Amino acid sequence: MTGMFISIEGLEGAGKTTQAEVLLTWLRARGHDIIRTREPGGTEIAEAIRALILSHHDEQMDPVTELLLVFAARQQHVTRLIQPALASGQWVISDRFTDATYAYQGGGRGLDRTLIASLETTVLANFQPDLTIWFDCDAATGLARAQARGALDRIEGEDIAFFNRCRAQYQLRCEQHPQRFLKIDAAPPQAQVSAQLIAALEVYFA
Amino acid sequence: MTGMFISIEGLEGAGKTTQAEVLLTWLRARGHDIIRTREPGGTEIAEAIRALILSHHDEQMDPVTELLLVFAARQQHVTRLIQPALASGQWVISDRFTDATYAYQGGGRGLDRTLIASLETTVLANFQPDLTIWFDCDAATGLARAQARGALDRIEGEDIAFFNRCRAQYQLRCEQHPQRFLKIDAAPPQAQVSAQLIAALEVYFA
Repeated sequence: MTGMFISIEGLEGAGKTTQAEVLLTWLRARGHDIIRTREPGGTEIAEAIRALILSHHDEQMDPVTELLLVFAARQQHVTRLIQPALASGQWVISDRFTDATYAYQGGGRGLDRTLIASLETTVLANFQPDLTIWFDCDAATGLARAQARGALDRIEGEDIAFFNRCRAQYQLRCEQHPQRFLKIDAAPPQAQVSAQLIAALEVYFA
Repeated sequence: MTGMFISIEGLEGAGKTTQAEVLLTWLRARGHDIIRTREPGGTEIAEAIRALILSHHDEQMDPVTELLLVFAARQQHVTRLIQPALASGQWVISDRFTDATYAYQGGGRGLDRTLIASLETTVLANFQPDLTIWFDCDAATGLARAQARGALDRIEGEDIAFFNRCRAQYQLRCEQHPQRFLKIDAAPPQAQVSAQLIAALEVYFA
């Protein structure tokens, strides 16, 4: 029996890390063997690509360069970690997956969504999460939380209009993939978000 | 007036570096303002991607990851260095370009050429060199020269069958693009190769 692949999505400061712990605990209590990972990253080479994507550089990174790096990291992550784990029956929870590419490189950077879809088809053969939990909050709330955490990376340092465009793309993805998406309101304090998450899980896995 | 874009191709140990100097001197003597660059690489970010591609890692790099990294570096190189230089009237000589991807990732790694062609079309909009000078030698000769230079990187360390497949792909590219390709026999000692190169340039630019 193959495992289930769950992605967690949301803007910086949406509380993904905290809620992933809640999700992990809830699923482990039900006896699942779970790996937690993240994008970009998750393997040695994919993490090295992540460092390149998120670092500040002396030259501007072309948006298509960024897109190709994201897919290079994803290819390594999927073939070396996610697919082998699923095949062995483990469940995989990833902090972000391809929906984030539509949000950040599509919405944020303004890249043509057909270019992203073309890479998704050609490279990944449309490999998708079984379930995507989207922690939605407005860009100002998320950004304020992210800033409170300290130094911002190359993408966290973008302006609020960038994150508004990302959020709009998440909304669009959610509408296009209603069977796969579980939308959670991430604006309230963490404890309330966790309560909502658990309620939603109890319905989804009932 | 836009400049001319010339790529230099060939296996490790084909003598590309030495012959590029000869080419540069010959063209400069004719009054051209020339930039010399290389792939993967040529800009700060593209050189960082190059380091990732050529380094040894604890995990195996998936061939499609390698392909996407090569195109990420190329996108950065083309948009940030090659196209601006050509637009300003400079000539650009690059040690390798997309033909090397067909040779190494297509021939060497055995990736489907339609995948490479799809990236070439989607990402680069089929941007091509105006002239490609291919220094051809058999894999054993090239490899022996590369080994004599010292420590081998992740790609130079492949076996002779890998480089035989690369060479076969270069031959195929040469046959498919006869107008753009200038094939030079790189097996003889360097001085003879240089003499051949200069003779070929005198005909080409006559």
